[in-house]
Amino acid sequence: MRELAGSPGTWSGLSLRVGQLVFAAASVCATASALGFAAYTAFCYLIASMGLQALWSLGLACLDCYALKFKKDLHSAVLVSLFVVGDWFPQPLKWIYFIETNQVTAILSFAASCSAAGVVVLFDRDIYACRRDPQLPCGRFELATACAFLSWAFSATSALVMFWLLASL
Amino acid sequence: MRELAGSPGTWSGLSLRVGQLVFAAASVCATASALGFAAYTAFCYLIASMGLQALWSLGLACLDCYALKFKKDLHSAVLVSLFVVGDWFPQPLKWIYFIETNQVTAILSFAASCSAAGVVVLFDRDIYACRRDPQLPCGRFELATACAFLSWAFSATSALVMFWLLASL
Repeated sequence: MRELAGSPGTWSGLSLRVGQLVFAAASVCATASALGFAAYTAFCYLIASMGLQALWSLGLACLDCYALKFKKDLHSAVLVSLFVVGDWFPQPLKWIYFIETNQVTAILSFAASCSAAGVVVLFDRDIYACRRDPQLPCGRFELATACAFLSWAFSATSALVMFWLLASL
Repeated sequence: MRELAGSPGTWSGLSLRVGQLVFAAASVCATASALGFAAYTAFCYLIASMGLQALWSLGLACLDCYALKFKKDLHSAVLVSLFVVGDWFPQPLKWIYFIETNQVTAILSFAASCSAAGVVVLFDRDIYACRRDPQLPCGRFELATACAFLSWAFSATSALVMFWLLASL
């Protein structure tokens, strides 16, 4: 099978994971440093989702480093493990198991980014809360949302590659 | 190739398309009937995205009906057309071309649903705008958001099936 850019255990895969990790961590820091973010459900969700994303990416990045250092073929190992575990389940559960492993963090972080963006746009352009209330940390909220979108972009790329790898077996 | 549930030109595919269409249309109606929705960017985006989704699903549903009535094998025809068009492009453009055809409406409607949901939750639970301002049509906004999520669920299923079909070629 042709080696796909961004698959587990390659340099491109590692760079995707590092990108996810860096932007997710930046988003968590920006949200946490915004005063009173806890009053808004969207930003609480954003910080939770980006925290999960950062932890998950850290784990995957460690796995990639290990594979690169010891020249293990993680690519086939991961796919084999997916199928070995998958074979214990009936077909629909196999799907759910696979989707859970990588897509869920991507979907969660996209949902969190979009709902935070909805709230930021509402504050900034619809109800003019940023101009009326100078204490509202709109700049930090915007920064956190932008980082979350960037982290999602990396995460979606890696989820697409994993899905493609599985489907093309 | 094994026939996948939900692929173009099958009864399951048609039911997915009809589900998308019905919920997208319901979401458009609920948003349009909410007084003053145009003041909120998130709901303007929701109505635009759900309108696009409804039109796109209507087109696909017509194609499915045609294939079912005249017993055409749309399944291979669609895939062949994808690859014929795709061959004119270099590899990265082929990807973009395919992704554009089905995934973009799913991603757009998910983004619209999430940002509308972020705003609805903000109104309802964070700044208590629904209780303070009885003229705000919170019920309609909630209904529109729920319909948008349901429409997205159908659309995501059909996008996943298309992606799987392409990848497993």
